[in-house]
Amino acid sequence: MKAAGSPRLSDPKDIRLAIRDGSFRDFTNLMAPGYVQGNLMIVPASHADDFEAYCRANATALPILGRSEVGSPHIPCLAENMDLRTDVGQYMVFRDGVLADTPTNISDLWQDDLVAFVLGCSFSFEAMLQAHGVRLRHLDEGNVSAMYVTNIETEPVGPFSGKLVVSMRALTPPHAIEATIVSDRFPQYHGRPIWIGSPEALGIADLTESYGGHGLTQLEPGEIPVFWACGATGQIAATAARLPLCITHYKAHMVLTDIPVVPAA
Amino acid sequence: MKAAGSPRLSDPKDIRLAIRDGSFRDFTNLMAPGYVQGNLMIVPASHADDFEAYCRANATALPILGRSEVGSPHIPCLAENMDLRTDVGQYMVFRDGVLADTPTNISDLWQDDLVAFVLGCSFSFEAMLQAHGVRLRHLDEGNVSAMYVTNIETEPVGPFSGKLVVSMRALTPPHAIEATIVSDRFPQYHGRPIWIGSPEALGIADLTESYGGHGLTQLEPGEIPVFWACGATGQIAATAARLPLCITHYKAHMVLTDIPVVPAA
Repeated sequence: MKAAGSPRLSDPKDIRLAIRDGSFRDFTNLMAPGYVQGNLMIVPASHADDFEAYCRANATALPILGRSEVGSPHIPCLAENMDLRTDVGQYMVFRDGVLADTPTNISDLWQDDLVAFVLGCSFSFEAMLQAHGVRLRHLDEGNVSAMYVTNIETEPVGPFSGKLVVSMRALTPPHAIEATIVSDRFPQYHGRPIWIGSPEALGIADLTESYGGHGLTQLEPGEIPVFWACGATGQIAATAARLPLCITHYKAHMVLTDIPVVPAA
Repeated sequence: MKAAGSPRLSDPKDIRLAIRDGSFRDFTNLMAPGYVQGNLMIVPASHADDFEAYCRANATALPILGRSEVGSPHIPCLAENMDLRTDVGQYMVFRDGVLADTPTNISDLWQDDLVAFVLGCSFSFEAMLQAHGVRLRHLDEGNVSAMYVTNIETEPVGPFSGKLVVSMRALTPPHAIEATIVSDRFPQYHGRPIWIGSPEALGIADLTESYGGHGLTQLEPGEIPVFWACGATGQIAATAARLPLCITHYKAHMVLTDIPVVPAA
């Protein structure tokens, strides 16, 4: 939940600094509306090319916004003063495919052979949906969108494979229509939804059982679930690959970039 | 149903001539893909300005493609050689709001004080939906889309008022998403859908009971109903206005124009 009284910071630079100095530890979904937020995936350099190929083969779920040089925790094309070791609110550390820790700083874990990827996140278009009149009830309720592991196989590349993860937003039918049309303009953050209605067709037996147990999972009368491909697909694939080390953001603690949200040409 | 072996004519001029000479009496929905089809509404000149204002106030349902001069059965901007007294396959003649006849030619009913309107029809974008991979099962089955009278009030103007009529297409969720995005580019033929799923929310208690009893009304497993505003809304309004004379096309016998289907700028 969003902490009561926490500031609605509007500048991604300010938020990164506040995360870095420990004064901001909240979800990022309401932060810096109008700026692109991304998923963080850090993998050993030996697996980076395979992971990039996996992302490109599954670009709806894993649209690449940036990739670091080997050993660098910086991606200057996304933000000049961003340090990916300190500027994300919370991390997940996987060792041999098993979650080992959830630190708030990974400076002591950094290695010269790591490569960081930032992948598009649907948080990027949520402010745009609201600007088009779409009510995002999960935001009104201080929550985040729920995620689910579907029965849809991604296209495997090298050691990377696994099911597609989706995010879900509970919308009225007219807002589902508007959200479909608006999000389609942003393929760099997953674009249009992949599914509307019937979660069971995606292999989701119970909406209340979300991936990680997070997010708004209850539909109100008159709402239908709308599903977008989700960057958490990369976490599943990295886990399945049993990488000796893989570090990702912790749910809803995204990478905040200085890139403005703009429709694809 | 489409008659077995009837030709799939591609040129709207040829189809109009075939309708005029009586050799074509079929539904028009599969005819001349890529050309705009329209709803016909003929009203007394004394009511034409009110009807035009009603259309403009309810432009999603009633987008005006053309209006004739008083007493003229021609709208040259839509087709040079079109005679609206003979070039529509079947008509409905309402007198004082009551259906009086369904002739195939209205030459003997024409009066010097009549004004014809042609309003956009969603048949115009069906070929475009198919070109984008959307399966329109009603077309595969030789049928037309079903229509329903909803519980949504149109904005009244003068004597014109009444409920919104919608067309329904049974689509899989991915095709519903694609159809939403593609049809949004064509506001001149109703544009995006107005509703997805839950027909009861529109006041449609039973999908099998369509307006006029026509069209594909049965959902197959995995399909959801997608609803677009429909030009038949004008028939309801003209009936409610109890015009002394009102002539419209008969269901699925549309006006075929020479205008190519192009997205709105």
